Amino acid sequence: MLSAGVVGGTGYTGVELLRLLIQHPQIELKCVTSRSEAGRKISELFPNLREHTDLEFTAPDEKSLAGCDVVFFATPNGTAMTMVPALLEQGVRVIDLAADFRLRDEAEWEQWYGIKHACAEVLDEAVYGLPELNRDAINQARIVANPGCYPTAVSLGFLPLIENDLIDDQHLVADAKSGVSGAGRGANVATLLCEASESFKPYAVDGHRHLPEIRQTLSGVAGHGVGLTFVPHLLPMIRGIEASLYAVLKTGSTDLHALYSARYQAEPFVDVLPVGSMPETRTVRGANMCRISVFQPQGGDTVVIASVIDNLVKGAAGQAVQNLNIMFGLPETTGLNNVAQLP
Amino acid sequence: MLSAGVVGGTGYTGVELLRLLIQHPQIELKCVTSRSEAGRKISELFPNLREHTDLEFTAPDEKSLAGCDVVFFATPNGTAMTMVPALLEQGVRVIDLAADFRLRDEAEWEQWYGIKHACAEVLDEAVYGLPELNRDAINQARIVANPGCYPTAVSLGFLPLIENDLIDDQHLVADAKSGVSGAGRGANVATLLCEASESFKPYAVDGHRHLPEIRQTLSGVAGHGVGLTFVPHLLPMIRGIEASLYAVLKTGSTDLHALYSARYQAEPFVDVLPVGSMPETRTVRGANMCRISVFQPQGGDTVVIASVIDNLVKGAAGQAVQNLNIMFGLPETTGLNNVAQLP
Amino acid sequence: MLSAGVVGGTGYTGVELLRLLIQHPQIELKCVTSRSEAGRKISELFPNLREHTDLEFTAPDEKSLAGCDVVFFATPNGTAMTMVPALLEQGVRVIDLAADFRLRDEAEWEQWYGIKHACAEVLDEAVYGLPELNRDAINQARIVANPGCYPTAVSLGFLPLIENDLIDDQHLVADAKSGVSGAGRGANVATLLCEASESFKPYAVDGHRHLPEIRQTLSGVAGHGVGLTFVPHLLPMIRGIEASLYAVLKTGSTDLHALYSARYQAEPFVDVLPVGSMPETRTVRGANMCRISVFQPQGGDTVVIASVIDNLVKGAAGQAVQNLNIMFGLPETTGLNNVAQLP
Amino acid sequence: MLSAGVVGGTGYTGVELLRLLIQHPQIELKCVTSRSEAGRKISELFPNLREHTDLEFTAPDEKSLAGCDVVFFATPNGTAMTMVPALLEQGVRVIDLAADFRLRDEAEWEQWYGIKHACAEVLDEAVYGLPELNRDAINQARIVANPGCYPTAVSLGFLPLIENDLIDDQHLVADAKSGVSGAGRGANVATLLCEASESFKPYAVDGHRHLPEIRQTLSGVAGHGVGLTFVPHLLPMIRGIEASLYAVLKTGSTDLHALYSARYQAEPFVDVLPVGSMPETRTVRGANMCRISVFQPQGGDTVVIASVIDNLVKGAAGQAVQNLNIMFGLPETTGLNNVAQLP
Repeated sequence: MLSAGVVGGTGYTGVELLRLLIQHPQIELKCVTSRSEAGRKISELFPNLREHTDLEFTAPDEKSLAGCDVVFFATPNGTAMTMVPALLEQGVRVIDLAADFRLRDEAEWEQWYGIKHACAEVLDEAVYGLPELNRDAINQARIVANPGCYPTAVSLGFLPLIENDLIDDQHLVADAKSGVSGAGRGANVATLLCEASESFKPYAVDGHRHLPEIRQTLSGVAGHGVGLTFVPHLLPMIRGIEASLYAVLKTGSTDLHALYSARYQAEPFVDVLPVGSMPETRTVRGANMCRISVFQPQGGDTVVIASVIDNLVKGAAGQAVQNLNIMFGLPETTGLNNVAQLP
Repeated sequence: MLSAGVVGGTGYTGVELLRLLIQHPQIELKCVTSRSEAGRKISELFPNLREHTDLEFTAPDEKSLAGCDVVFFATPNGTAMTMVPALLEQGVRVIDLAADFRLRDEAEWEQWYGIKHACAEVLDEAVYGLPELNRDAINQARIVANPGCYPTAVSLGFLPLIENDLIDDQHLVADAKSGVSGAGRGANVATLLCEASESFKPYAVDGHRHLPEIRQTLSGVAGHGVGLTFVPHLLPMIRGIEASLYAVLKTGSTDLHALYSARYQAEPFVDVLPVGSMPETRTVRGANMCRISVFQPQGGDTVVIASVIDNLVKGAAGQAVQNLNIMFGLPETTGLNNVAQLP
Repeated sequence: MLSAGVVGGTGYTGVELLRLLIQHPQIELKCVTSRSEAGRKISELFPNLREHTDLEFTAPDEKSLAGCDVVFFATPNGTAMTMVPALLEQGVRVIDLAADFRLRDEAEWEQWYGIKHACAEVLDEAVYGLPELNRDAINQARIVANPGCYPTAVSLGFLPLIENDLIDDQHLVADAKSGVSGAGRGANVATLLCEASESFKPYAVDGHRHLPEIRQTLSGVAGHGVGLTFVPHLLPMIRGIEASLYAVLKTGSTDLHALYSARYQAEPFVDVLPVGSMPETRTVRGANMCRISVFQPQGGDTVVIASVIDNLVKGAAGQAVQNLNIMFGLPETTGLNNVAQLP
Repeated sequence: MLSAGVVGGTGYTGVELLRLLIQHPQIELKCVTSRSEAGRKISELFPNLREHTDLEFTAPDEKSLAGCDVVFFATPNGTAMTMVPALLEQGVRVIDLAADFRLRDEAEWEQWYGIKHACAEVLDEAVYGLPELNRDAINQARIVANPGCYPTAVSLGFLPLIENDLIDDQHLVADAKSGVSGAGRGANVATLLCEASESFKPYAVDGHRHLPEIRQTLSGVAGHGVGLTFVPHLLPMIRGIEASLYAVLKTGSTDLHALYSARYQAEPFVDVLPVGSMPETRTVRGANMCRISVFQPQGGDTVVIASVIDNLVKGAAGQAVQNLNIMFGLPETTGLNNVAQLP
């Protein structure tokens, strides 16, 4: 059994992580910290956990965290970086579900996140936790930067095309749509039911923080900088991301479905759908799974990839548990085998 | 390992039952029959099952069903009754998720369901599968009539009051609301998204088939006929039932919360909430759980009970698995421990 | 043309009132005040108004309000009472969409609203603006207290039964359900899409502020205090209230449908549905209409009334405009004839 | 007053058209035909119309239609073409909300719609009813082919770029999303609330019938064939279309916002939003309006246009009424001035 701590368990990523850790057969959940809710039963805030845990939120406390094998950060951006160095020093392995360690370039991070980085020296060491790309490095990592939700869906969708240099990578388009849970559990007019349901809109067209993250991943694979237009949209629903990806093929003769199937055949959490099948977000709701379809409409030179995940699972908490399994040498699917709820 | 067959797995109750059986550690799913989908992969119809089963739907076939330890019927009303006698004869135990065996009175059944009963002789033997009321009989039963969704929520809510003869049981009111999945997966204008979302309405006020079922249960406990007004409503959402129950107390001095807590203390799937807490359907989504709150507003003589379940789980497939566990002597919570997904 | 001012136009009641006033042929909208949004274009906050008004929010200013024929308050509770006396003194007629003048009893008001009333002397003069009950008084009123949303649906549903003394009025039950817009546009975790959609719950069972308001109306009609259990619930949708009302008949022989039809025949905004028809909230979405159905299930002694309104229209802004029409002698339906949007 | 007939008023486009025609000050609605509902009150099928019309559906009858000034077809594809020639001959002007007259090329129409065209000789005469492009021709037209919903949103978004030859028009991308009402009121498993809510998916990626329609419009403007990838998606909501459009600029120095503002300045139903503003579908719900935003993210060579409409209004019934106004010389906004309902 591994002992785990969670820093910041009061958001949607947090409660989803608790759901998965509580059901994980190799994890003992030791502490869940929250400055604002310290002393309150977790199941009082999240009654779905009433039968499953008697833990209370505790104030963040380095000592009890230092006694864990692994600590997850499900905190707002900018929190983990203030606590991680001390934990690493004490031999604790860390998985950060926020963005503190996702960009390798300190200056770029500070530009997009608007604050000074507190431990830039850790950026080099941090491993970007996309298992389908970095499995070996994750296994060795002391600190894993769990990918953002959009970057997971978009990167897995583009990877085979970029790896095989099949497309004009200077004009990639990612039209992505996310359920409202991606915006978090903060009190906010824009995510009220009366504002966000029965409506649809793009947002952050001028630049979303996940843009440099996706660009970094794809550029790393390409070996040079890629050009990407990334437009996120807000879906009137709770969970799920769909990314429709567009690129112009440099050559038209490849069997793209075969390429994708081969690339992801051994991946337990990427499912390339049969030819002609369309991915629906509900088929991955609650499950750590990315389903992908590949199209070449009318046999033209434009390829369309559709990629779906549950933003809170493969896009956050589930991928974090997948990374945990890899880091500690457990079978990668441990605790992640539940069936998506449909309907 | 027990071998299980499912007759009729193409509706919402069916796919939810498949989700639970696939994840049940003591069950081997042997066959899933569907006349209309025979030969098709189950995971083609329900892509959430892609990683979890390679089974195909087969045509209903008595022989392969007869080889099962248990057969579930997730069929429309009127189907199970034509197949059950033969299965019982061959020693197969049966759990019917439809209504064929829920009413003991043949004439009443035929009146409400509008068809002749095909095996009225089995009605006497069939056990009404509400574990919190009939656990011992379920354990011995060859055939279990799995309760309806509304009856589960309403009966569990009223039971302690009726058992202790605390209320005027001639004027019970059950104002119940259900998500649209309760209406099934049939193509139907009334349950289109554009008809049923962003709206709310009562229906079947003049008489719903679950009325005689609830009345039978409560009257059985009371020892005489109870009077019940039951008004179902359609909620603009997928899963969940909430029943608000109203009754006039014959005596005002009882500690109702203590009464309910004691009644359900040993029940793994009934949760009496702390005083002042309100049950939300989302806290039981996907979980086999009924959460109940008890109120006596302004200390008056009217008691208000609020009871929530997931209509597809504790109201259907989950309760069926609970009944299976009881019938075969397994720990009652086997395969039913998953945490509700929130949000 | 009448000149109108609106104090507090930034909430859902406010924007709905603006929608109706802008389309009202006899109204010139002179000013819309908001302390927080002063100087901002109204259509910037509410882009649905872009083609319809160039007005900006202004700081509340007694002088410009005093120049209006009528001033609407669409403010939080407790605001109107501080400004109303000065406006009345200057001959402005006032319609308060908040609760400041709804209860005649100062002590009861202070108990339920938790603050001291600033102009209790006005309470006596204020007319409760339910046109179907108080039309003549409204016509003469200087100040109208626009009814709450639940009280409108519940009172219209019970009125004919109480007026004719047909029921046990000590055990009335009102099981009411409201869309989330009833909770307002404030940033609030409980009304986030991820909290309030795909779920359903009762709330304020121990006592909601609309309880004394309904009790006051029904008791006034009965000529003595009635006993009411009122349980509100939160619906996972934006607009609409349905109230299911239960009462035990003192006599079983009345034709209730005929009674209701006669009572509301001349009312332009109350629609008694044909026998057997169920009201759906979507049939009144955006319209100033209350639709009512009457049932006596299985011919028993319990009557069930179902009443639906759009909480923002007949439950707030539409009823306010109806009151305006009555106060100023305009045809009552002026500006209120639009068809509900379906789907 | 103009007399109008509607053929096929039982779908969502039909009921929306009835809502608009009933409220139109220059229209007298003479007959609404429906083979399946003949003899039934319209307001029985659509209770939102109870206060507004006493008309019954009638069987389609050439004589009574021939007495109208204008006849609208809100029928499935393939119906109008069988009735239109006779009506034209009798001097009735026709607006077809279905697809029968949208494509000029008979062979292409038959390929995409899978049936033989019954009156191909009318295709040449039919005017494509996009007022922002064809206003003068519409004014003279005997028969107007009302544009599809997606084509309206996509074409208005691309027009200024194509008209000014600013982009690589061989690699246009239109990522479009529609509410479920676009799929119609037919009983269909795929559009049940339990299938289509809380989920999102692309569909018809290999080729949607609106693709040739959009291509025809844009190619006509360009003066040569354009290359377009069009991917529709299904939104979990009732009304609204958003199209995100992507193209690579041939030159980077144009002020695109100024270009769009100038192009649509005189258009009553196209609203170019201020720089930085994002269009939301809810701001046009129920209104005949297209709102458009223009972006050039990070100042790169890719332009992003976001265009929103209500698919049932500017995408269908509202545009049909706009065409009617143009055809008969009425002010173009007659009967189309209502404010969108928000929230």
